[in-house]
Amino acid sequence: MTQMKSKYPVQYELIHVCKQSGARLGRVTTPHGSFLTPEFMPVGTQGTVKGMSPDELEQMGANIILSNTYHLWMRPGSDIVREAGGLHRFMNWKKSILTDSGGFQVFSLALPKNIKEEGVFFKSHIDGSAHLLTAEKSISVQNDLGSDVMMAFDECAPYPCTYDYAQKASDRTTRWLERCVKAHQNPNTQALFGIIQGGVYPDLRVQSAKEITSFDLPGYAIGGLSVGEPGDLMYRMLDETIPYMPSAKPRYLMGVGTPDYLIEGAIRGVDMFDCVLPTRIGRNGTVLTRNGRLIVRDASCARQYFPIEEECDCYACRNYTRAYIRHLLKAKEIFGLRLCSYHNLHFLLKLMKDVRQAISDDRLLDFRDEFFERFGYGTK
Amino acid sequence: MTQMKSKYPVQYELIHVCKQSGARLGRVTTPHGSFLTPEFMPVGTQGTVKGMSPDELEQMGANIILSNTYHLWMRPGSDIVREAGGLHRFMNWKKSILTDSGGFQVFSLALPKNIKEEGVFFKSHIDGSAHLLTAEKSISVQNDLGSDVMMAFDECAPYPCTYDYAQKASDRTTRWLERCVKAHQNPNTQALFGIIQGGVYPDLRVQSAKEITSFDLPGYAIGGLSVGEPGDLMYRMLDETIPYMPSAKPRYLMGVGTPDYLIEGAIRGVDMFDCVLPTRIGRNGTVLTRNGRLIVRDASCARQYFPIEEECDCYACRNYTRAYIRHLLKAKEIFGLRLCSYHNLHFLLKLMKDVRQAISDDRLLDFRDEFFERFGYGTK
Repeated sequence: MTQMKSKYPVQYELIHVCKQSGARLGRVTTPHGSFLTPEFMPVGTQGTVKGMSPDELEQMGANIILSNTYHLWMRPGSDIVREAGGLHRFMNWKKSILTDSGGFQVFSLALPKNIKEEGVFFKSHIDGSAHLLTAEKSISVQNDLGSDVMMAFDECAPYPCTYDYAQKASDRTTRWLERCVKAHQNPNTQALFGIIQGGVYPDLRVQSAKEITSFDLPGYAIGGLSVGEPGDLMYRMLDETIPYMPSAKPRYLMGVGTPDYLIEGAIRGVDMFDCVLPTRIGRNGTVLTRNGRLIVRDASCARQYFPIEEECDCYACRNYTRAYIRHLLKAKEIFGLRLCSYHNLHFLLKLMKDVRQAISDDRLLDFRDEFFERFGYGTK
Repeated sequence: MTQMKSKYPVQYELIHVCKQSGARLGRVTTPHGSFLTPEFMPVGTQGTVKGMSPDELEQMGANIILSNTYHLWMRPGSDIVREAGGLHRFMNWKKSILTDSGGFQVFSLALPKNIKEEGVFFKSHIDGSAHLLTAEKSISVQNDLGSDVMMAFDECAPYPCTYDYAQKASDRTTRWLERCVKAHQNPNTQALFGIIQGGVYPDLRVQSAKEITSFDLPGYAIGGLSVGEPGDLMYRMLDETIPYMPSAKPRYLMGVGTPDYLIEGAIRGVDMFDCVLPTRIGRNGTVLTRNGRLIVRDASCARQYFPIEEECDCYACRNYTRAYIRHLLKAKEIFGLRLCSYHNLHFLLKLMKDVRQAISDDRLLDFRDEFFERFGYGTK
């Protein structure tokens, strides 16, 4: 346990601001360790990052993972995780954990659902059983899980949606945050982050940012982005929102994980990111490389007796060839998706390390242009 | 590379004979290392032990693995494995590898098939393409794979089968062995083992043992057992066969892997075993314990916050509870079957270690009785 100096269980320390981009290098400290930011958080939806062991996550340099409250609540049940000693002990992960509120999954996975002021009535995607997710329930489950960072229960408006819908969802998110703060049982050991909503409407974003940051919380997140809107629109929302977020607290952009979004997010002052992308595309035999995405399943890799990336020092690239990994994928062997997932997670963690170095060197815009050109994105 | 002293690329050294059982403790040395026997070989059908990494296999103490010629020939093709530098390099396994002949898979997996003196005409189970597997082809593929131990191409008679069928299959196995010996291109670096057949007919077993061991080979195997016949019948066949096998060479009982068969085989003088059992049942959520099989998927494990086996020091038992593993299995998470497979492989490797210790202590019969009683087998 790291000794805490402030009243918050999670603290942010600003180390350096990139003179070229304004991006920030910092350090977040939780009850389960410190990590430099900007940082990427691998997603372990059901209490495991798909295909990986906690040891492998540590080996590749992961410092904090995200797990999903909705999934763990539905199965195995938060009582079981609590009885096991909390999620860290249950899954044997000794570093930091962030849990979401369950709201996003209820809105996207569970059907039918019925959104009321009290909360969301829904049926489990596993067995169809009826449940009600409220601010109080979300916090109670997250208290059971014992995550270092808990997320407030919010209403994430879809894209596209009307101004009126986005406004109502945003207003409700603020009211729900108040209930979350009241319901939180462990404010000294678990940090509750508020979530800014507002759809793709600048004035709603500003209003939400002001309201949410008026709560004295250890950190704040930007939700409701990367839900289908064009990249430029997302960047504009970040530009509108982030100036209203306090610089002394960590900023978390939810659900973002493609390399371009990670770099553009960092440039705009985001500290934390999460996304299922690396394991999801890895399971399907696609990997990330400095030269863009590579479909290792493709016949073109059948006789390539060299690694996914020669310059990569991850476990997969140090030990296995594209030819072998392609064979494993074609043969539907688990070890194939393990290797692809490992490489992809390592790739994004290494990307964030490079981003931090570029911030430190005051050249993040140059880094972005170089990375984008090689990866195959249009330069901005 | 271990330095070779004899003309054989694989050697056997007898260390001790158990005064109580007659079982033998020995050491087998291949171009990729030495291991004590009796030993269990995990099966990596398609060039990977299902769910495991080579590092994990080494960590759990595996010394030699088996891979399947038929599968690698069909996919990715033996030319690709050869071009990759052989199977050791292709799959990054630095210790010993044994490959089977492909015969057993052609007899069991490929349909339709047509057995002639020349070889077996069959259609691939992957794409239905027509192929002919002969003694020469099997040896050629295994030469491409570069395994330390190659198995002769044999005809494995089913159980039950008539005396006449078993005799013809056994006679043909001898003729095919002669062709295998002639076709073998790397006798100085790859050991070819002959296979004794004869069904469940004692006189055919004896005749086959005499014929097969008349070839000057580095080792011999007993095939055609554990194919559905009762255990007692298998033990009787071992009792009939093994006295005709030379004591200066390793003896391999093919496809055997349940704890009772392993112990009874060791008692009768077998040195090497292989079976898919640990990974196959592991993937389905069943694990081996000293107290018998345990279905970790069962609801009874939902709140068991202790390891599969308290006394086990494997990675799974040192770090995870039954409750967590059960959750992973119910949620269809890969890490669940990784942990079950790891434990099961470790269990059988540890069992063989205990068997070797019991041989060394001249008490293998006592060990058997104690193990059987606790595991839930009837004592013999």
